[in-house]
Amino acid sequence: MDKIRRVLLVGGTHGNELTGIYLIRRLQHAPQLISRPSFETMTLLSNLEAIAAGVRYVDQDMNRCCDRAHLELPEPIDYEVRRVQEINRRFGPSGSTPADVILDIHSTTSNMGMTLILDDHHPFKLRLAAALSAQQPDLRIYSSANSGRQQDALRSLGRFGICLEVGPVAQGVLQADLFQRTEALVQRILDVLDQQNRDEPLPKVQPVPTQPVTTQPVTTQPVTTQPVTMQPLTVYQYLGTVPYPRDTEGQITAMIHPHLQGRDYESLNPGDPIFLSLTGETLLYTGETVVFPVFINEAAYYEKDIAMVLTQRHDLQVDFAETL
Amino acid sequence: MDKIRRVLLVGGTHGNELTGIYLIRRLQHAPQLISRPSFETMTLLSNLEAIAAGVRYVDQDMNRCCDRAHLELPEPIDYEVRRVQEINRRFGPSGSTPADVILDIHSTTSNMGMTLILDDHHPFKLRLAAALSAQQPDLRIYSSANSGRQQDALRSLGRFGICLEVGPVAQGVLQADLFQRTEALVQRILDVLDQQNRDEPLPKVQPVPTQPVTTQPVTTQPVTTQPVTMQPLTVYQYLGTVPYPRDTEGQITAMIHPHLQGRDYESLNPGDPIFLSLTGETLLYTGETVVFPVFINEAAYYEKDIAMVLTQRHDLQVDFAETL
Repeated sequence: MDKIRRVLLVGGTHGNELTGIYLIRRLQHAPQLISRPSFETMTLLSNLEAIAAGVRYVDQDMNRCCDRAHLELPEPIDYEVRRVQEINRRFGPSGSTPADVILDIHSTTSNMGMTLILDDHHPFKLRLAAALSAQQPDLRIYSSANSGRQQDALRSLGRFGICLEVGPVAQGVLQADLFQRTEALVQRILDVLDQQNRDEPLPKVQPVPTQPVTTQPVTTQPVTTQPVTMQPLTVYQYLGTVPYPRDTEGQITAMIHPHLQGRDYESLNPGDPIFLSLTGETLLYTGETVVFPVFINEAAYYEKDIAMVLTQRHDLQVDFAETL
Repeated sequence: MDKIRRVLLVGGTHGNELTGIYLIRRLQHAPQLISRPSFETMTLLSNLEAIAAGVRYVDQDMNRCCDRAHLELPEPIDYEVRRVQEINRRFGPSGSTPADVILDIHSTTSNMGMTLILDDHHPFKLRLAAALSAQQPDLRIYSSANSGRQQDALRSLGRFGICLEVGPVAQGVLQADLFQRTEALVQRILDVLDQQNRDEPLPKVQPVPTQPVTTQPVTTQPVTTQPVTMQPLTVYQYLGTVPYPRDTEGQITAMIHPHLQGRDYESLNPGDPIFLSLTGETLLYTGETVVFPVFINEAAYYEKDIAMVLTQRHDLQVDFAETL
């Protein structure tokens, strides 16, 4: 695979998601923190007008207008379309400084913890995700493949687009603990990209010894003498979205059930509570299979009529040998 | 005191605070829930355009433009000013159906729990607060007297203006547990207003017996034979606001310290951590007295440059006898 030459870190694609905005500002003042030997790291605040106004977007969602139709629109009127055309001319495939990796930093009101979003299962992305998961077991990997998102998100302008979602945090709020965890994760991502670029060994999960535990004294011999190349990776794969219950006038009539609120990435079983109506009735999940909801009660998804996104859990094995 | 004849319940003064908006919608469909024998209960969604847009306000903060200057402005341009003039013509002192009590329901990203905001210490309000506290010890009473807020808030259009703040909840998010707790509190407020109106005994805190605990069998005699008229009430009184640290370009350079985040109504002592800079340095509280911060990290206060509001804690005794 071609080496990564340029990595673009992006914040502020949504102007009210402060974690990424303040992190990019900080890194722009301390470029040594993101400098790596084998590639150039660039930074970008993308939706400048929305950042200034403290809103998600000014004219339209910047993370939904990076598809070809918008990029090729002559003389666009909407600010976001003008801006993504400009960003594409700089960092897109035919741009002046094309980005091999775009890491777009978002935040969410859902309890998504630290989530890496992949839009496809390219081995490069899976290796990155598996190496990060080996270091940080609470990192979640969500794959939006089949949701259409790889076509129109800002990160799609790069050869490899990756999204960070951190939460829960309110829109328009900077929360110190999440800020620091996000900064640390961005550092680790750059480290892994650099290791991968230089064919250095990636961080691995150490295999659990298969022999029964004994009381013998610990030896200095490593348990495994063969290189471990297959690495485990759990991916939550997009299945579909659940809309809010509404009345005939289109008004929302039910809320996320308290039993489900904050339970992103936990199993939702047939018959589990899913909504609580404003009048106090519990509505149950009527699906026939166990699913794993994410983006539960994300503020920005009310207007998209998404109460949550359902996923399926897949346990993969990722081959690290390909890069060695 | 004159009886309460009309109570106005308001939601949506800020269009992205969904708890109040959805609660008012629910109550408009179930008016029997808020009907009381001794007064008329009315409901209002105040900032209709902001509600439709899902933003705090369209042109200016509706909860800051109910002062005389704005109310008397001829032919105002801003939507919120036009709307508060209209609301004043209906529910204001000279309106067609003047409200004796306006209860304006807000939500906050701060960990304010269930908070009743009083703008002054009128005995009527203190009795209401003390009666509610007797039933619900975790209810917090914040007094914004001296902050200037009684002059320009929407609730100031009523003879008695009271504000509910519930949190933490993100802007644009409806959270079931808070919604239900808010509905229950609104019910209790209406109950107490009705009891007060009809000179019925208000809910009281039962006094702790002063005699030492003995092992004698419990008698059926009440511990106290005299009517209890003085009731305890803890009020957190506005002292001032703390701005965010900023650089020479006006950019925020520090976040609420993780040790302070979510600690609304807890004591902040001289030397305690207050901010964490983006570069990782801890800034300490340099005041000389113990204070009790509230509205810590409220999203809507970034634009007002308020990182938190400092209060002093006062333990009052409220005389219930005045109404008996």
